[in-house]
Amino acid sequence: MPAAALPVTPTALAPATPGAAMHALLERLYPICRSLTGNGVRQTLAILREYLPELRVLEVPSGTPALDWTVPAEWNIRDAWVKNAAGERVIDFQQHNLHVVQYSTPVSGWFSRAELDQHLFSLPEQPYLIPYRTSYYQPDWGFCLSHQQRLQLQDEYYEVCIDSTLDEGGSLTYGELVLPGACPDEVLLSCHCCHPSLANDNLSGLVVAAFLLRELARRPRRYTYRLVVGPGTIGSIVWLSRHPDTVGLIRHGLVLTLLGGPGPFTYKQSRQGTAEIDRAAAQVLRHSGQPHAVRPWLPYGYDERQYCSPGFNLPVGCLSRTPFGEFPEYHTSADNLQFVQPGQLAESLQVTLSLCEALEANRTYRNLQPYGEPQLGRRGLYKGVGGGREGAEWQLALLWLLNLSDGQHSLLAIAEQAALPVPLLHRAAVALEGVGLLQPFP
Amino acid sequence: MPAAALPVTPTALAPATPGAAMHALLERLYPICRSLTGNGVRQTLAILREYLPELRVLEVPSGTPALDWTVPAEWNIRDAWVKNAAGERVIDFQQHNLHVVQYSTPVSGWFSRAELDQHLFSLPEQPYLIPYRTSYYQPDWGFCLSHQQRLQLQDEYYEVCIDSTLDEGGSLTYGELVLPGACPDEVLLSCHCCHPSLANDNLSGLVVAAFLLRELARRPRRYTYRLVVGPGTIGSIVWLSRHPDTVGLIRHGLVLTLLGGPGPFTYKQSRQGTAEIDRAAAQVLRHSGQPHAVRPWLPYGYDERQYCSPGFNLPVGCLSRTPFGEFPEYHTSADNLQFVQPGQLAESLQVTLSLCEALEANRTYRNLQPYGEPQLGRRGLYKGVGGGREGAEWQLALLWLLNLSDGQHSLLAIAEQAALPVPLLHRAAVALEGVGLLQPFP
Amino acid sequence: MPAAALPVTPTALAPATPGAAMHALLERLYPICRSLTGNGVRQTLAILREYLPELRVLEVPSGTPALDWTVPAEWNIRDAWVKNAAGERVIDFQQHNLHVVQYSTPVSGWFSRAELDQHLFSLPEQPYLIPYRTSYYQPDWGFCLSHQQRLQLQDEYYEVCIDSTLDEGGSLTYGELVLPGACPDEVLLSCHCCHPSLANDNLSGLVVAAFLLRELARRPRRYTYRLVVGPGTIGSIVWLSRHPDTVGLIRHGLVLTLLGGPGPFTYKQSRQGTAEIDRAAAQVLRHSGQPHAVRPWLPYGYDERQYCSPGFNLPVGCLSRTPFGEFPEYHTSADNLQFVQPGQLAESLQVTLSLCEALEANRTYRNLQPYGEPQLGRRGLYKGVGGGREGAEWQLALLWLLNLSDGQHSLLAIAEQAALPVPLLHRAAVALEGVGLLQPFP
Repeated sequence: MPAAALPVTPTALAPATPGAAMHALLERLYPICRSLTGNGVRQTLAILREYLPELRVLEVPSGTPALDWTVPAEWNIRDAWVKNAAGERVIDFQQHNLHVVQYSTPVSGWFSRAELDQHLFSLPEQPYLIPYRTSYYQPDWGFCLSHQQRLQLQDEYYEVCIDSTLDEGGSLTYGELVLPGACPDEVLLSCHCCHPSLANDNLSGLVVAAFLLRELARRPRRYTYRLVVGPGTIGSIVWLSRHPDTVGLIRHGLVLTLLGGPGPFTYKQSRQGTAEIDRAAAQVLRHSGQPHAVRPWLPYGYDERQYCSPGFNLPVGCLSRTPFGEFPEYHTSADNLQFVQPGQLAESLQVTLSLCEALEANRTYRNLQPYGEPQLGRRGLYKGVGGGREGAEWQLALLWLLNLSDGQHSLLAIAEQAALPVPLLHRAAVALEGVGLLQPFP
Repeated sequence: MPAAALPVTPTALAPATPGAAMHALLERLYPICRSLTGNGVRQTLAILREYLPELRVLEVPSGTPALDWTVPAEWNIRDAWVKNAAGERVIDFQQHNLHVVQYSTPVSGWFSRAELDQHLFSLPEQPYLIPYRTSYYQPDWGFCLSHQQRLQLQDEYYEVCIDSTLDEGGSLTYGELVLPGACPDEVLLSCHCCHPSLANDNLSGLVVAAFLLRELARRPRRYTYRLVVGPGTIGSIVWLSRHPDTVGLIRHGLVLTLLGGPGPFTYKQSRQGTAEIDRAAAQVLRHSGQPHAVRPWLPYGYDERQYCSPGFNLPVGCLSRTPFGEFPEYHTSADNLQFVQPGQLAESLQVTLSLCEALEANRTYRNLQPYGEPQLGRRGLYKGVGGGREGAEWQLALLWLLNLSDGQHSLLAIAEQAALPVPLLHRAAVALEGVGLLQPFP
Repeated sequence: MPAAALPVTPTALAPATPGAAMHALLERLYPICRSLTGNGVRQTLAILREYLPELRVLEVPSGTPALDWTVPAEWNIRDAWVKNAAGERVIDFQQHNLHVVQYSTPVSGWFSRAELDQHLFSLPEQPYLIPYRTSYYQPDWGFCLSHQQRLQLQDEYYEVCIDSTLDEGGSLTYGELVLPGACPDEVLLSCHCCHPSLANDNLSGLVVAAFLLRELARRPRRYTYRLVVGPGTIGSIVWLSRHPDTVGLIRHGLVLTLLGGPGPFTYKQSRQGTAEIDRAAAQVLRHSGQPHAVRPWLPYGYDERQYCSPGFNLPVGCLSRTPFGEFPEYHTSADNLQFVQPGQLAESLQVTLSLCEALEANRTYRNLQPYGEPQLGRRGLYKGVGGGREGAEWQLALLWLLNLSDGQHSLLAIAEQAALPVPLLHRAAVALEGVGLLQPFP
């Protein structure tokens, strides 16, 4: 199998623990004003390239057709504010980039309070938080602010400025990295990079993916791993439209998102529902020691919506902690650097890595002595004095593998039936292969 | 599709609400002494024809073979009584037609108290109610009375008279109505009409069926609807024996009974168990807002026993409220006009109609843009400003339909997986068909 | 069908109840020092032959290859003891044969307390019980004793003697009995006979099997029954290796063990999981009136491990009461003649017999009048006066059989769906066959 190919840069190794290193990356990415398109995405990918030097950055011109969609104009923003009669900035993009509705068209002039109010978004039930709003596909402009702040807007007229550009001659930017394995079959890892200063959604997914790829690069690999980092929806649609042949190589896929918050792990099944990735995720979470839930497919959510559209129907699930919309910080200014903790990122990296390990380990074996049990003692795989009650997970793992390795049960299927963890069964399979009792199917 | 064909008679429209109108019909039918055969059935069908003028009344001569059975002699009764020594009518058919065991042979003469007692039926645990008893296929006679009444029979001898006739030259009477639809595939609706003055069992079924057919007649229909009204068991056996070709056209069927009482809706699955009618009933009840239960197939009950016999194995379920034998009024004089309330009948009509609507709506569609999600916004089917958490059943309905319309999921299958109501999905399917995104399979 | 073939000997009939008779046999077998091989097994089989005269006793020379195994040397033991400095027997095989680790190699000489301690086994948490230990496949020697006893060994040196022989020129002994039925298809009954003075594990299995076979011998039989009595693991492996053709005739199989204790019945499914024996066991236990549990397949346990190895994959389950390792007396001197009670043995015989009856009764029938219900009243199989609510399990049994006998539902499948006991359905099937309504498939 190919050895690790990606050089490790010093930057990434500075902090003492994986969680701290991941959080350090997240801190650098947090202030950037990302959107569907524009320089924020480019800056983000440039920083990721410090960790993953082989990440390629691709540009797709605005106006390019992609499946049923068209790549939108590129949006950039320099400044935006609302000033009161006294000329004070009462809403200020420089203070927080959530203050501007994403893809706001440029605007400049005086508005009555009533007119302005049509363009304001706040959360009466969370009066101290700034919401996150977008208007990608319907030209409009707006400001988001805390409800507390909104209630203080008592002047008759306000001066408004949004210094943004929507460039039909621009492009959409996305990143892609391929980590070759022993076979061309692929594991797709996908995360969106279109949210501005929101730490859990979506920076946590980017950061976990980056560290996962670095770790996978160090190991022998059966599968080829492909990371796609692009804006939500249109990014995966663009990618799908440009890789009709690669699509046929994807054996398993995972959308990574919301992996920095404190909640339980949540795996959302692919449209297929019983794909290998779905079964592997259930097994890994079951033995992870972490609170977790497995949810059925839903055609709403992140980029799995595109990968699992009926024409593609790829085996792509979504791994997160608490899902979108189910924690109060979601899509507000409270989804910040404090909400995402290093330890939570480290747990997420571990679970994600375990899932890749489960896919790697999932082979189907054939028992070469299928008539009766083979005598394990003779081969040094059985305890000596019998009759006692000592627990024997290892013995059970050996027996389950021998019993079900009839060519019709994968290691994962055996894990499911035996309720034993995949890594234990994997070690047992290696031991049995070592004494000539198991043989993997080609 | 064919327009409504049945003229609406003024009689049926008099009361202000459907429930009141249905109860008014039930009040007219209640006093009639129906049985397996005879004039009571004819009078009942004659009244139903005021509501459903196209209902045909058919006569099948006694002695006609029907599958494993033979059409019995026609039974009619003019009067019946038991007189005490003083010549007073202590049991009197004129007071309540439940007093006579159905199909009692004629009898006239004096009997000792002990002899008479062999022919009496009462309910010691419900001492004020008259039970309902039959002896269709074993020639005998008998009286039913309240246990209270029975305890007062202290004379030594009683004079008994049952002025009934069992005519081997008579016939069995049943009614049939066909409401043609756009295709010859049929929905069979079946109710029994053999019970005398029992309001819930079986008049409620007749009344709901009549109003359902009137409503269906007003609407465009994909399916052809066939109503069969006949005596229990022998009626459906006669019908099945005479329509070998029609049987092959039945796609869905429903026995309607016990729909006037206060209990929860109960759908009993067909023998097939997973037929479209079984799945539609489960979905309709799930979203009905009514207490309900779905029960598995049981080869005991009403005429579904015949339709679901293994040679026919038709997809015919049974819709009722509280099932037979599970409410204290069952088969007693307490199953009367007070037990069946207008509002209960109206609810039953609504559920039954919703079930027919679900069958009509259940098409299989193909997504014409199956690669990625189609851009709904461009087609006016998506909200503008994104990022908020607003509930979106409509959006979900659109997404589920697009995601699962691969030609292998019917609208009903999508309703099951999405846990969304059929009518919502139906409206969404119409909208998607309107913008060219969905196409129904032929 | 063949009549009973086995003569009944007077010995077996002496006690008044089956439970007492079974316990009497168990009392005779208990003191014998059985092991994998040797004279204890021969004595045991000789006593069983008093009850089952047609039981054949077979010898397989040590060194014979059997599948992946080799028949071990024959082990016999005359005496064994540990004497203290004063020459007193402080551990004495004559007191309890559990005191010696099974297959201990011969030893004779003086040992320091520390050296001896390496060869002692006791249970600190059950300080008054002697454990049961074996060292079949790793040459070693040892003594088992109560922990209380062990603590009293305070001398510096002990004299040790194990007067055992391991004879490479010996043989392995097993018993086999075939009870021919009307067809060559076989039911395999298997129990292990390698445990010394342990009453529940495994004498209870032997005793129940012996009485079951005696009872089956008295009856007409569809199936041929084969009893195999041999040492655990190596016994079934030897039998399997010598009967490649018979294996193909086994339709159902049952390992009988641990049937004398007080716990709930526990059926462990075969590897197939949905074999007829698995379904029959579930039905029989469901209607047994006994506490019970059904457990999924596990490749650890008794000889079902061999029968269900993937190359054979026979439909062999395991019936016990509380399973191994789950009761405190397990594999200790407390598994004795008091732990196994006559009534418990009698219940186990009854359940085992019911299971064989269920297999015998499980035919697939065809309803010869499948269109509509046949008129049962005309054939004397239906109650006369209708309308009441009287319970009617018998009626239901008739209706279920008629409804599901389409050639695709066995009697067992009908029992599962109808939740009715197999014996009731069997009687109803006989009645329906008697009036020409059902016909068994060939």
